[in-house]
Amino acid sequence: MANSRFEYVKSFEQPDVLLPNTWIVVRIDGRGFHKLSDHYAFAKPNDRRALDLMNAAAVEVMKELPDLCIAYGVSDEFSFVFHPNCQLFERRNGKLVTTIVSTFTAHYIYNWSEFFPERPLLPPYLPSFDGRAVIYPNNRILRDYMSWRQVDCHINNLYNTTFWTMVLQGGMSNTDAEQELKGTVSADKNEILFKRFGINYNNELEIYKKGTVLYRQYELEEPKPTKAPADEESPVIESQQSRSQQDKIRKLRRKAQVVIDHVDIIKDEFWEKRPWILSGNPGKLPA
Amino acid sequence: MANSRFEYVKSFEQPDVLLPNTWIVVRIDGRGFHKLSDHYAFAKPNDRRALDLMNAAAVEVMKELPDLCIAYGVSDEFSFVFHPNCQLFERRNGKLVTTIVSTFTAHYIYNWSEFFPERPLLPPYLPSFDGRAVIYPNNRILRDYMSWRQVDCHINNLYNTTFWTMVLQGGMSNTDAEQELKGTVSADKNEILFKRFGINYNNELEIYKKGTVLYRQYELEEPKPTKAPADEESPVIESQQSRSQQDKIRKLRRKAQVVIDHVDIIKDEFWEKRPWILSGNPGKLPA
Amino acid sequence: MANSRFEYVKSFEQPDVLLPNTWIVVRIDGRGFHKLSDHYAFAKPNDRRALDLMNAAAVEVMKELPDLCIAYGVSDEFSFVFHPNCQLFERRNGKLVTTIVSTFTAHYIYNWSEFFPERPLLPPYLPSFDGRAVIYPNNRILRDYMSWRQVDCHINNLYNTTFWTMVLQGGMSNTDAEQELKGTVSADKNEILFKRFGINYNNELEIYKKGTVLYRQYELEEPKPTKAPADEESPVIESQQSRSQQDKIRKLRRKAQVVIDHVDIIKDEFWEKRPWILSGNPGKLPA
Amino acid sequence: MANSRFEYVKSFEQPDVLLPNTWIVVRIDGRGFHKLSDHYAFAKPNDRRALDLMNAAAVEVMKELPDLCIAYGVSDEFSFVFHPNCQLFERRNGKLVTTIVSTFTAHYIYNWSEFFPERPLLPPYLPSFDGRAVIYPNNRILRDYMSWRQVDCHINNLYNTTFWTMVLQGGMSNTDAEQELKGTVSADKNEILFKRFGINYNNELEIYKKGTVLYRQYELEEPKPTKAPADEESPVIESQQSRSQQDKIRKLRRKAQVVIDHVDIIKDEFWEKRPWILSGNPGKLPA
Repeated sequence: MANSRFEYVKSFEQPDVLLPNTWIVVRIDGRGFHKLSDHYAFAKPNDRRALDLMNAAAVEVMKELPDLCIAYGVSDEFSFVFHPNCQLFERRNGKLVTTIVSTFTAHYIYNWSEFFPERPLLPPYLPSFDGRAVIYPNNRILRDYMSWRQVDCHINNLYNTTFWTMVLQGGMSNTDAEQELKGTVSADKNEILFKRFGINYNNELEIYKKGTVLYRQYELEEPKPTKAPADEESPVIESQQSRSQQDKIRKLRRKAQVVIDHVDIIKDEFWEKRPWILSGNPGKLPA
Repeated sequence: MANSRFEYVKSFEQPDVLLPNTWIVVRIDGRGFHKLSDHYAFAKPNDRRALDLMNAAAVEVMKELPDLCIAYGVSDEFSFVFHPNCQLFERRNGKLVTTIVSTFTAHYIYNWSEFFPERPLLPPYLPSFDGRAVIYPNNRILRDYMSWRQVDCHINNLYNTTFWTMVLQGGMSNTDAEQELKGTVSADKNEILFKRFGINYNNELEIYKKGTVLYRQYELEEPKPTKAPADEESPVIESQQSRSQQDKIRKLRRKAQVVIDHVDIIKDEFWEKRPWILSGNPGKLPA
Repeated sequence: MANSRFEYVKSFEQPDVLLPNTWIVVRIDGRGFHKLSDHYAFAKPNDRRALDLMNAAAVEVMKELPDLCIAYGVSDEFSFVFHPNCQLFERRNGKLVTTIVSTFTAHYIYNWSEFFPERPLLPPYLPSFDGRAVIYPNNRILRDYMSWRQVDCHINNLYNTTFWTMVLQGGMSNTDAEQELKGTVSADKNEILFKRFGINYNNELEIYKKGTVLYRQYELEEPKPTKAPADEESPVIESQQSRSQQDKIRKLRRKAQVVIDHVDIIKDEFWEKRPWILSGNPGKLPA
Repeated sequence: MANSRFEYVKSFEQPDVLLPNTWIVVRIDGRGFHKLSDHYAFAKPNDRRALDLMNAAAVEVMKELPDLCIAYGVSDEFSFVFHPNCQLFERRNGKLVTTIVSTFTAHYIYNWSEFFPERPLLPPYLPSFDGRAVIYPNNRILRDYMSWRQVDCHINNLYNTTFWTMVLQGGMSNTDAEQELKGTVSADKNEILFKRFGINYNNELEIYKKGTVLYRQYELEEPKPTKAPADEESPVIESQQSRSQQDKIRKLRRKAQVVIDHVDIIKDEFWEKRPWILSGNPGKLPA
């Protein structure tokens, strides 16, 4: 065919398949959201509508990609997690990341007007997101990744809550507030909030303190005595799972509801009650 | 800080910097557009509004990323090209690809209602795109890449035009039309169009036959006697360009208008008259 | 300095760090050993001196690189295994592989005359080896890799033993022997050996049937009731191990003797009695 | 076959094919040669026998791999260069690098006794080498790489010659000589050599000042007026060269003698007179 003279350029495409049997985390981040949040006048330190919009878009991503087993969001970032036995797009890095970034963006833009009816989008201030994939070799490290993000959420939220309270309620300049907070530890910030403003940080909304975790809802299980974790017990020889098995599991996942939760994901309890997240095997649908 | 116990997970992020001094092409593709074009009743074989929407979104991408020097679109795909001396995002693969995919998606969704006022978007049928970056080591190969896409456009459009004319005007079934076209060459298809339907393929719209090329408009130049191409003449030691130089060039690029063209990009003429595309040096702004 | 004009070429070097917390296997293979073994008249189906030379070179590699925790050899290949917490050369792929390939080659060439005193090396027939690194995310898969090589050893050795017995003792042509063996299973080959030649395959030397496993010798331990495997129990945050700790462990490893063994490494027993291999923690030196 | 249960581990091997149409440079370096050169009492600042041994081993590598078009060596390092149209081992990074490192090591060890008859090798002091591959997108940058190494050779040799003359002839301590040379430029070092020791640096051996360049010898050509460089003129669609063509070219290359030269490779002259190096097309064999 006439095309063939140029087709050799395809040979420059390089494979980017992610290592088998590892957790894949795709984390997306808002691009230039500092400027954007000013432009659309997001509330400080947290804008509930903006977070709800992030969560709404993320739920749609979870629905469209049943291979995702959990997601965690805070501020303008969201981490989407594929199980080690995931075979979606043959585990091609670029395909996985761009699909998530694009799907998320589409829903974020589409749903904007529902969450910000009085602040219509106006180019050139259209929100967009970048993203990356990182792989983690076992459950422990995947959980440490999730903990890292939730600790980050806590640290940033405590800081931001204190800072903006000092500025908005205390009438301090940004610079003065920043200066005073330099070098303080958590206890100091709690004290500033409580003593000066009568605010008990513990009473802040869970969505601000814990961020948002999304997962498919099955019947909760009683934690069992610890046993060898799934990825050691039996090698998940995923490439040998038949396509029909994979399709069946995908259908089961689609049936489960995606829930929006704001709970501790650092301690064991969350994971022990929801063993389907780490095992990758769908649980029992609630009656 | 309390965070540090988990921060080690950052060490699992792997670098993905693209080889210096090579052309970077980011090609994006519509996900599941076959189904989508049915759902929103795109016209066959070409839907002008859909193409115009693709082009509108691509123009916005060009405007937001002045480092882009040319882009080429056909059907539901678009290729965006960064010059070998581009340093944007330190040439990180994931960052470049996801930024383009997300920005494109945002504008595509945002502009949809302007181009399809009578067909509002409705989840779960939200358009989205995936993408990939490929690098090409020299001008010749970059041009062969562009030629490859334009030849592909021609081949597909001739096929689709003939096929849909046979079906829509000739009343053939899809299967019969497909069967008859099997093994035909260009001349055969031209003849079918002309003899049976009185259609001269040459008179079809250029946007359908040639696809769309986007670039920044400077004053056209007279082709000069061939000389050593830019990437050989002087090694573009891009990392040694100062930031202020890069910023200056970026500003010059922002001033140029992004034009939408439907012309041959396979022959030399296009490139010789617009030397700024391959050289990476902004030309003279039109009066 | 005058040098700087050209130094930008260093920016083309790309990082190749292997994912943290994964097993690294470097497998090397003899290049063109089929031809080479003819030239130096290796005995068929196994040449004991050639295997002993392979093992001698591999022992030297183990001694020079205390980070190696186990190695397995068969025919003209050898697999060297680094523990998930290995930080040698910052886990750079190229550095790890070339160091092993070169060190192995050096000792192989140097020791040749000791094992083949009557067959001096003569260029252009100098032995050389290529190699590659592969990473495995957990203990189970690492053990499956090792099992894969040992099963391969068994399959090939049974075939070769039968083939060469048919040729050398049975007077068959290579082609006839090959033809007869086509499609046979293990039992068939055992029967041919036993019925036609009175050979009980089980009595063949262990080094031929099992290949060679190298490891550092500490006091064997009694298998304990299964517990959570090391890589789950505590995340090996290797980058946080201090240099001095790493150096101390390295010294302990150097003190242990490297043993040459020909035993089953597929079953659990081998690994349970030598827990230091999978844990990465040196055991107790024998009195 | 019984093997299949474990064979899935092969899926963890990741491709490492180098970008097509780019120069491949494999640079190898002696491991721990500082200590090694002390142990075997290499002469300071240059040991002629050690350099001759490096060159002898490198010549053998060039002979064994006709795909190599040029090599450059200095001190204990050697750079081997494959042409952009090289298809050897499908351009697999690991295979190319380990083959060169191992072949070089084999010949270095094998030839040692010829160059150092009075200093037999003795483990654990066996020489070994590590290596890496780097790709360069065009002729200009490849030449800049070569220039970088030769400038490095010059800078180091001038320093070392001055330093060791001050120590060995001038009776200075290492520390004092190092101290005095700190911050000096080339002219200063030339003056120290000339004024204090009557040494004209220009009269030093070319092998020390220029390093060693290896290439296949064809009839020298007269430099032609500059024309578009090979990699632009015609896209080298290497994958479309037939195997038989590649084999033919390989045979032609084997016939050419590999010469050992110590000349300037920074200026154009070297490359213009030997156009076969950059073009990849064998020249005319000398009568």
